[in-house]
Amino acid sequence: MNSSLPVLKIGMLGCGVVGSQVARLLKDDARELSTRSGAQLVLSKIAVRDMKSKREGLDASLFTLDAQSLVTDPEIDIVIEVMGGIEPARELILQAFAHGKSVVTANKALLATHGSDLYSAADKAGVDLYYEAAVAGAIPILRPLRESLVGDHVKRIMGIVNGTTNYILTKMDEEGRAFNDVLAEAQSLGYAESDPTADIEGFDAAAKAAILAGLAFHTRVTAEDVHREGISSITATDVSVAKSMDHVIKLLAIAELTPDDQISVRVHPALIPRTHPLAAVRDAFNAVFVEAESAGELMFYGRGAGGAPTASAILGDVVAVARHRTVGALGPRESDYADRAIVPIGQTKTKYLIRLNVADKSGVLAAIAQAFATEKVSIQTVRQTGRGAEAELIIVTHNATEAALSSTVKHLTQMEMVRSVESVIRVEGAAQ
Amino acid sequence: MNSSLPVLKIGMLGCGVVGSQVARLLKDDARELSTRSGAQLVLSKIAVRDMKSKREGLDASLFTLDAQSLVTDPEIDIVIEVMGGIEPARELILQAFAHGKSVVTANKALLATHGSDLYSAADKAGVDLYYEAAVAGAIPILRPLRESLVGDHVKRIMGIVNGTTNYILTKMDEEGRAFNDVLAEAQSLGYAESDPTADIEGFDAAAKAAILAGLAFHTRVTAEDVHREGISSITATDVSVAKSMDHVIKLLAIAELTPDDQISVRVHPALIPRTHPLAAVRDAFNAVFVEAESAGELMFYGRGAGGAPTASAILGDVVAVARHRTVGALGPRESDYADRAIVPIGQTKTKYLIRLNVADKSGVLAAIAQAFATEKVSIQTVRQTGRGAEAELIIVTHNATEAALSSTVKHLTQMEMVRSVESVIRVEGAAQ
Repeated sequence: MNSSLPVLKIGMLGCGVVGSQVARLLKDDARELSTRSGAQLVLSKIAVRDMKSKREGLDASLFTLDAQSLVTDPEIDIVIEVMGGIEPARELILQAFAHGKSVVTANKALLATHGSDLYSAADKAGVDLYYEAAVAGAIPILRPLRESLVGDHVKRIMGIVNGTTNYILTKMDEEGRAFNDVLAEAQSLGYAESDPTADIEGFDAAAKAAILAGLAFHTRVTAEDVHREGISSITATDVSVAKSMDHVIKLLAIAELTPDDQISVRVHPALIPRTHPLAAVRDAFNAVFVEAESAGELMFYGRGAGGAPTASAILGDVVAVARHRTVGALGPRESDYADRAIVPIGQTKTKYLIRLNVADKSGVLAAIAQAFATEKVSIQTVRQTGRGAEAELIIVTHNATEAALSSTVKHLTQMEMVRSVESVIRVEGAAQ
Repeated sequence: MNSSLPVLKIGMLGCGVVGSQVARLLKDDARELSTRSGAQLVLSKIAVRDMKSKREGLDASLFTLDAQSLVTDPEIDIVIEVMGGIEPARELILQAFAHGKSVVTANKALLATHGSDLYSAADKAGVDLYYEAAVAGAIPILRPLRESLVGDHVKRIMGIVNGTTNYILTKMDEEGRAFNDVLAEAQSLGYAESDPTADIEGFDAAAKAAILAGLAFHTRVTAEDVHREGISSITATDVSVAKSMDHVIKLLAIAELTPDDQISVRVHPALIPRTHPLAAVRDAFNAVFVEAESAGELMFYGRGAGGAPTASAILGDVVAVARHRTVGALGPRESDYADRAIVPIGQTKTKYLIRLNVADKSGVLAAIAQAFATEKVSIQTVRQTGRGAEAELIIVTHNATEAALSSTVKHLTQMEMVRSVESVIRVEGAAQ
């Protein structure tokens, strides 16, 4: 380190997979980080829940069980929060702000629930709140949205922001395997949690969708505003039907402006064309596809999780916050001036793929087409494959509201000639 | 606009395709830009070379022929330079700095030649120099490199940073057409200049490579430091051979750290595997693939040129610079502390594909393999296809220096059994 530079002391809340990487990098790269930030960055305290875990390469005297004393310590300038969860993280961050510390966090759940409160508290205290690591790990997406695209108008964001579900869907697509089979394998390999609900059912992606929507559309959006559907109902047949149509099924986090300037924000599986840049995003990789008025189509791709990638994003924020403290500046504040309304899912328009088993006799197609027409859902393509007494009917609609589509499906299930509605999946990323 | 906010006056040098879009957006989005920047941004002067061109929607009184008076005008706070070229742009920007103005520019050639002088002058004057639009148009790549990845170590950058050449190579790949044929079409469509040298021969990409290498490796790199080869020698056969090997040929701008911490920076066509994320970047799109120590693999994708996309990047910079002026802060300075050496191309190691026509008789392969061994170039794969008295031999090497490879090719051309060395192309992006 360059000892002529001012010292900034860092306290860290938590020291798990991410925290231990952050601690290692702060130590190993001390000289370069000081050159780049204009300050000597010293990790001086780490609050943990137990002192027994072995933490290699880190001085035991750094550790404390008293998180409270860390966030109120007058010596500490910057707090890194990597403990996760809502409480006590929220309370500790608020206290850190109240005691004049800037905060860097990777806590998507907290930001998607209490983001505005945190921003207000940081603003009041005149300190920074940075959280690049909260969405898509190492991929720089929040800084480009908050800063690079600040002179543009974002129209739509579609992201693959959950690595576990993308890993599962990739294996299903490439190996033709069933959901439960791949999930079990992912769990045994440590790619999926033993309780995979947060990933599989889209809770994790919904928190990230809320953060992205808020930044893109200058409006407060919380995880509760996000319509959420997971991937547990996606079958091997769904995946193979998508494949036969040159599409691939992805769990997408979508935030888009509607024609009347409202926001639709949702997480659900969807078919996208194989030619779409997101279709090539495989395994546990993440990517965020952005459509802006002037910039056009942009995509940001990389590792969405993992200790080192997440630590990279956190250190980028730490350097920014440190530079601000040495020169007396501040980063962007919350931008919620647009205050747009969030469209209920019933009014959200997308294309749909509906797969039906129907009786294979004359007049069926006409009757089913009539059912769609009655509900004012316009059909784009139909594919019928006979198999004995039954036929498989695959219908892709033009844009339709979720409400109209639901009515149509209800209508279909009441028709005698419809043996079963096998699946209903949205189609995204195609020309309308 | 919010009239309680301070006014910042903007002068613009040039008003072509990009400048007219910048002017339009500054006018149309005045209210939002003021909310986002904390200042009323007023375009108050535009210097042009002739007053006769019709410029729709812009007040004639804005225009002046006197660029000199614009950059010295005490009323002007921010100068946007979109005139291009080295002089008088360089001299005007230096004067703008000397008169206390921050500068936003899209001028890659200027930055790749005189970047350090400009940085020094901005530093001395205590003003900002921003230039996101200079590399890969609308794609936020410089801000992520300068800021998001500032806590990480970039190991390699591979970019498709020239839209014209990527358009040509895409058509050659997808339609099997010859270079000259596609170039002529691109010229007639306006996708390529009537004198296409800057694009085709890699000068444009080399300037961008220099800028990316400098930022990534904290070292001064100019366009002259960049080894440069264009795509005019790529034949339809090269493209189809690449295709038969599940590769695609792209013009790549590469900046990488060598094992002994030097920098290799070069622009040349190369085969990359179809599974590489860059392989899917089609037509005039650009993408920059970054490998960093902690973050892993990242890719940034979007439109690399065009009026509106470039204007989006410029306005992002203008908002940043405006925010800095209202709060008295400054963006990142030049970072050249690492001062790494640049490796001569002869010592640069890559894999190569060599395609030969040889006599189809026994002992040929052994003799040719011996020629490689003599030059200490290790062979990875060989594919021989007989056709009458001749055979086509396609050899892919392991990593070899350019010097060793050149010696090998010289050696081969002197062998009687070698009828011709049809092509020598580098292979990038694969496991070694």
